[in-house]
Amino acid sequence: MAQIGIYGLGTMGSALALNIAEHGFDVAVTNREVEWIAPFMTEAGDLAVRLHPHEQLEAFVAALNTPRVILFMIPSGAPMDAMLDQITPLLSPGDTVIDGGNADFHDTRRRAAQLAERDLHFVGLGVSGGEAGARHGPSMMLGGSDHSWAQLEPILTAIAARYDGIPCVARLGPDGAGHFVKTVHNGIEYADMQVIAEIYSLLRNGAALPPAEIGALFAAWDLGPLKSYLVEITARLLTYTDPETGHPMVDVIKDAAGQKGTGRWTVIEALRLGQSASMIEAAVGARGWSSEKPTRQRAEAILGGAVGAFDDTPEVLAEAFLAARLLTYAQGFRILAAASDAYGWGLDLATIARIWRAGCIIRSALLDDIADAFDRDLPQGELILAPEIAQTLARCLPALRQVVCSAVHGGHPVPALSAGLAWYDSMRLGHGSANIIQAQRDMFGRHGFERLGRAGLHHGPWWD
Amino acid sequence: MAQIGIYGLGTMGSALALNIAEHGFDVAVTNREVEWIAPFMTEAGDLAVRLHPHEQLEAFVAALNTPRVILFMIPSGAPMDAMLDQITPLLSPGDTVIDGGNADFHDTRRRAAQLAERDLHFVGLGVSGGEAGARHGPSMMLGGSDHSWAQLEPILTAIAARYDGIPCVARLGPDGAGHFVKTVHNGIEYADMQVIAEIYSLLRNGAALPPAEIGALFAAWDLGPLKSYLVEITARLLTYTDPETGHPMVDVIKDAAGQKGTGRWTVIEALRLGQSASMIEAAVGARGWSSEKPTRQRAEAILGGAVGAFDDTPEVLAEAFLAARLLTYAQGFRILAAASDAYGWGLDLATIARIWRAGCIIRSALLDDIADAFDRDLPQGELILAPEIAQTLARCLPALRQVVCSAVHGGHPVPALSAGLAWYDSMRLGHGSANIIQAQRDMFGRHGFERLGRAGLHHGPWWD
Repeated sequence: MAQIGIYGLGTMGSALALNIAEHGFDVAVTNREVEWIAPFMTEAGDLAVRLHPHEQLEAFVAALNTPRVILFMIPSGAPMDAMLDQITPLLSPGDTVIDGGNADFHDTRRRAAQLAERDLHFVGLGVSGGEAGARHGPSMMLGGSDHSWAQLEPILTAIAARYDGIPCVARLGPDGAGHFVKTVHNGIEYADMQVIAEIYSLLRNGAALPPAEIGALFAAWDLGPLKSYLVEITARLLTYTDPETGHPMVDVIKDAAGQKGTGRWTVIEALRLGQSASMIEAAVGARGWSSEKPTRQRAEAILGGAVGAFDDTPEVLAEAFLAARLLTYAQGFRILAAASDAYGWGLDLATIARIWRAGCIIRSALLDDIADAFDRDLPQGELILAPEIAQTLARCLPALRQVVCSAVHGGHPVPALSAGLAWYDSMRLGHGSANIIQAQRDMFGRHGFERLGRAGLHHGPWWD
Repeated sequence: MAQIGIYGLGTMGSALALNIAEHGFDVAVTNREVEWIAPFMTEAGDLAVRLHPHEQLEAFVAALNTPRVILFMIPSGAPMDAMLDQITPLLSPGDTVIDGGNADFHDTRRRAAQLAERDLHFVGLGVSGGEAGARHGPSMMLGGSDHSWAQLEPILTAIAARYDGIPCVARLGPDGAGHFVKTVHNGIEYADMQVIAEIYSLLRNGAALPPAEIGALFAAWDLGPLKSYLVEITARLLTYTDPETGHPMVDVIKDAAGQKGTGRWTVIEALRLGQSASMIEAAVGARGWSSEKPTRQRAEAILGGAVGAFDDTPEVLAEAFLAARLLTYAQGFRILAAASDAYGWGLDLATIARIWRAGCIIRSALLDDIADAFDRDLPQGELILAPEIAQTLARCLPALRQVVCSAVHGGHPVPALSAGLAWYDSMRLGHGSANIIQAQRDMFGRHGFERLGRAGLHHGPWWD
């Protein structure tokens, strides 16, 4: 009898199935397109002995130990609801259903409530690390009941990526908490990638460095505080040549980025929570603008596409990158904190930082420092005010200013770098300029303002 | 018998009622809190002869000519739905109900569809100009049926603000089109105000100019291409002194901005439409950060709140302001175009620009040029590529670069100015750096990329 069932043998589902089997568990598997099952079993090789394929849903369900645990790796949205309609009649109180896809956490909350009415447990599991992660050690963010976590913990801790031997998986809260944390992970991923793209652009178009040389720089940066999966793969990809033309591979790739939506979701949720994920919004925006290549080409013909030289040293650029990455994390964790308050999830931000240290796309050396920061003195709960982080930022901010200045002066677009800097400068000034906005709002809309140093709503003398 | 009924005698409702009566129409009025009616009638003075108060809903409805036209000026959201439940049974096919509040256009579309089932017409009317506008000439953005427009046109064209004698009101499309356009108007308003706040901050904290001197500068700017209501009221408010302390009034107002939500809605809708309203997002973000004053004060103690001198001339600042304002409008109109496509509204962008030339909060001299740009050659439909606008931007961009550089160098937060510049620089470069992002996405997620100059999805040699 199988300890877990996996429905969905696409890239991620099959990788997870093999990973789980490899760790000694018996896994029942099935798929909507039954013709995918046999090739999967063949691909499984020696692991096939632990994999129990079924074409019929009823047989699949019957093959599971009780209480049952079923992981769905299928497209999000309507397919998941249809699947639940199909499978719920076959389940018993105490069974757990897991959605391991990139679901909208609102849907996850709804589904969890619906299944709870029938004493069924619905888990939203965020899985990061791509196919390689799924196969050999993902980072996982779980939202669900204590009961579900008790069922899943042995399996998930066995297969998770490990950092210093610690499995990168945790139950973060109820129902949608896991999918929400995964969404924000992806938002941070967008922003981190956008920062890298802006830095790459400065080196390629401003300093006229060939891709391989830029790759060597990233490889060197991967040895220091910027050590991270994204820096590592950037260094790697820049070493490749296009087999067809002999040009650097990156040079033959169209500068039009795709996006699946999670970055956008992060920004929308942040706004709903009264937060601003301005660096993530910059990343989402930049991808959208990149996909408008015909317009950009037309615009270049009309507005001119010249850019200036970029002379700042790699050391300055590295410091700017480090500052930007810290600001990205800080904005991301603010969203998590706001959601935790709004939904009563009690998110443990240190735990989240810790399970992101390995397995997931944004894994980086910095996340270890960030986890520590959450365990210690954190003025106003703000990451940028944690002593060590504030110190690093203070050291690196001049470099960020310089790089943004150079970029702006030379016409190099730096939406994420400048958004991060603007946030930092907004937060460090105890006295900002929103008093002008309040005065204007009172003048045209009689909205009223507060006076410095006292409570109560006032109106300006322009109303007298 | 009354040609129109107004339900809701708050600030906006009573102002509109008086405006309509003043233009010779008979208006039935009522209010949920019946005790507001008598004071309103007293305040109406001579106009009371055209105002017909009723305490009972039935009597109010009975006092109207048929087909009936009823304008609701009540809180948005659930109150509007409750109101519709109450009044619909009293209406007849062909009657028109108008929501004149700042409604979410999704709700307006829903309500329009619901009422249409009963042969009733639901109009979403965006009204801008504050209390003064409502009383003496608002700008109005209508979404509704041809039938409703035929009913309302005589009244609304009579009371609207006028620009060169042309009434600033139009039927922009069906159902939610009017409320959506109003939402975007408010988003642009946020961004324009944020740009002003950033400029004010540079002059106050960077150039150490006293408020009255800054006011004089704004007054001078109000005579040129920056002529606008927001510049005019900024100039005005900076002349006031606090009666209590003798300080400049603006200096005693707390730098914590409030927001009612429409700026946020604009950004959320823009994102859903695949657009980036990055300057509006910067404005929404900045207001949110401003409301975290205790955190900012703590942050200043830890991170330091020093800012550098700002030496750029008023002329440079004015050019930067002009560029930023054009970029704000361009981003706003892109959102309108995207929504028009998505919802099949057929929005006439020139008409929208024209009805914004007077009455509304964002009214400015530039909107006349923008309306013209929409009537002429508009490469790729992009405002920044319209010949005259592209020319103005080209002339002013160096100043925007200089101001952002100075600000960034001196630690002055310029989220909106830098976001606008980043967008401009992203759009004018036919070759951007999203190729790096596509390469990364393929490397970790096997998402595939396009090659330059050919169709089809490819994967990189890192998969071989």
